[in-house]
Amino acid sequence: MFITETLLVVRYAETDQMGVVHHSNYPIWFELARTEYIKNLGMSYSQIEKRGFLLPLIELNCKYKSAARYEDELIVRTSVKELTFTRLIFHYEASKKIDNSLVSIGETTHVWTDKNLKPLNIKKHAPDIYQLLGQGDKVPIP
Amino acid sequence: MFITETLLVVRYAETDQMGVVHHSNYPIWFELARTEYIKNLGMSYSQIEKRGFLLPLIELNCKYKSAARYEDELIVRTSVKELTFTRLIFHYEASKKIDNSLVSIGETTHVWTDKNLKPLNIKKHAPDIYQLLGQGDKVPIP
Amino acid sequence: MFITETLLVVRYAETDQMGVVHHSNYPIWFELARTEYIKNLGMSYSQIEKRGFLLPLIELNCKYKSAARYEDELIVRTSVKELTFTRLIFHYEASKKIDNSLVSIGETTHVWTDKNLKPLNIKKHAPDIYQLLGQGDKVPIP
Amino acid sequence: MFITETLLVVRYAETDQMGVVHHSNYPIWFELARTEYIKNLGMSYSQIEKRGFLLPLIELNCKYKSAARYEDELIVRTSVKELTFTRLIFHYEASKKIDNSLVSIGETTHVWTDKNLKPLNIKKHAPDIYQLLGQGDKVPIP
Repeated sequence: MFITETLLVVRYAETDQMGVVHHSNYPIWFELARTEYIKNLGMSYSQIEKRGFLLPLIELNCKYKSAARYEDELIVRTSVKELTFTRLIFHYEASKKIDNSLVSIGETTHVWTDKNLKPLNIKKHAPDIYQLLGQGDKVPIP
Repeated sequence: MFITETLLVVRYAETDQMGVVHHSNYPIWFELARTEYIKNLGMSYSQIEKRGFLLPLIELNCKYKSAARYEDELIVRTSVKELTFTRLIFHYEASKKIDNSLVSIGETTHVWTDKNLKPLNIKKHAPDIYQLLGQGDKVPIP
Repeated sequence: MFITETLLVVRYAETDQMGVVHHSNYPIWFELARTEYIKNLGMSYSQIEKRGFLLPLIELNCKYKSAARYEDELIVRTSVKELTFTRLIFHYEASKKIDNSLVSIGETTHVWTDKNLKPLNIKKHAPDIYQLLGQGDKVPIP
Repeated sequence: MFITETLLVVRYAETDQMGVVHHSNYPIWFELARTEYIKNLGMSYSQIEKRGFLLPLIELNCKYKSAARYEDELIVRTSVKELTFTRLIFHYEASKKIDNSLVSIGETTHVWTDKNLKPLNIKKHAPDIYQLLGQGDKVPIP
């Protein structure tokens, strides 16, 4: 399985008055980790969007295991959990760099759409993009 | 079951380059709806925090049903799905005001903690707060 | 001078570990106040964008006078400070509703552009929009 | 003059429906650049806060020179413009890494305060912190 590791440093603006990272930042971190994952496969997500294909979320799940704090260095490990002709599930694990302790586990489910957010079959419309993501997933490409 | 309805208007900053609301804003909307829910029960969440009790999330689930756009008026319907001595699950439904079409469904699971984020039994430490939220839930208070 | 008053309630996600609102939220509040200002003149900013005219910022200035906190009710008073054929300056004052104490003063300078962010003369391309905003400004319309 | 260069990659969540970075993200970038600036002087801002000294903003100025887009690599150059016993002005220039074209220029003015946001004289309360920042500024330390 193809896994990328993305390093990030917690920003002050990401904290809240509890003194820890606000939970709404994790989906943003997962997104930047996803960006790096796709880029590492050999095509940037910007390029994919320019070709007219979007990957909006239809579901987000996030478990918070321990608190992250300002200036913490975190590593997000990203992989593809499932890949079909129409949808894609990413899996994420965020840990502290200092001791590898788990901070959060997440999953995002996406559908392929056109620019008007109409769902489409990516295998049919862009077989190269489908194959690209399939490399990550090690899913046998039919 | 006690349900509150919270009205909000989509902010420009909440959109992304897909032309719709970025998915990371929904947890923030759920949070402000939760704030209003608790306030409507008779005690603000600010007051609860001042007494030393916090309600950090341990889990977030969100399903995106249709896209919301800039200046859309949305209504978030909030209720308590589950209440125990140590945790609390809120349920949310966000719809467009104009046609009541569903935009998103979400759930957040929280634990009661002290200021150092150590879990605690809220029934034991603050029976009035437990009872307050139990009113919302219509859970029989032991 | 035309002034609108926009009420908002501070969101938990808008606080930081200092226990007060993070400074990056004020431009977002100014923006939603600007949205309401334009809407009150009789045409939504969404409609203006749909016609192909954008109003990107070229400058932002913000003075922080006192801290705002979670659940604070704030009023943002918005007016147009300057209006020309090519640019627009908005002025904002955010105060606490409870005692009218000043929280922040801000200004945003915008240029009119087309969808490709090329500057344009709004009086020439959309005289009705220029006149609309001129009503707010009480600037004599030539 | 001591200058740090901070590299960042534009996040998808930082874009808006104009297709470019929303202006409210620049203060957040300046802040993370400031974090790195202070860290490079030899003491993290987290440590400074733990010692009871805060640096809230009292003023923000930002000029937007050109648009930044999703996945753009940017470099923020940070320096101290002014340092007194009670306040501190940082200066920032954000440029695209690819061609060094200027994206934004900013300044933030801060006051030193205690944990209750009461202003204080940092030279008096923490001469080592004053000296630390003075090294950056090349201001002669009295």
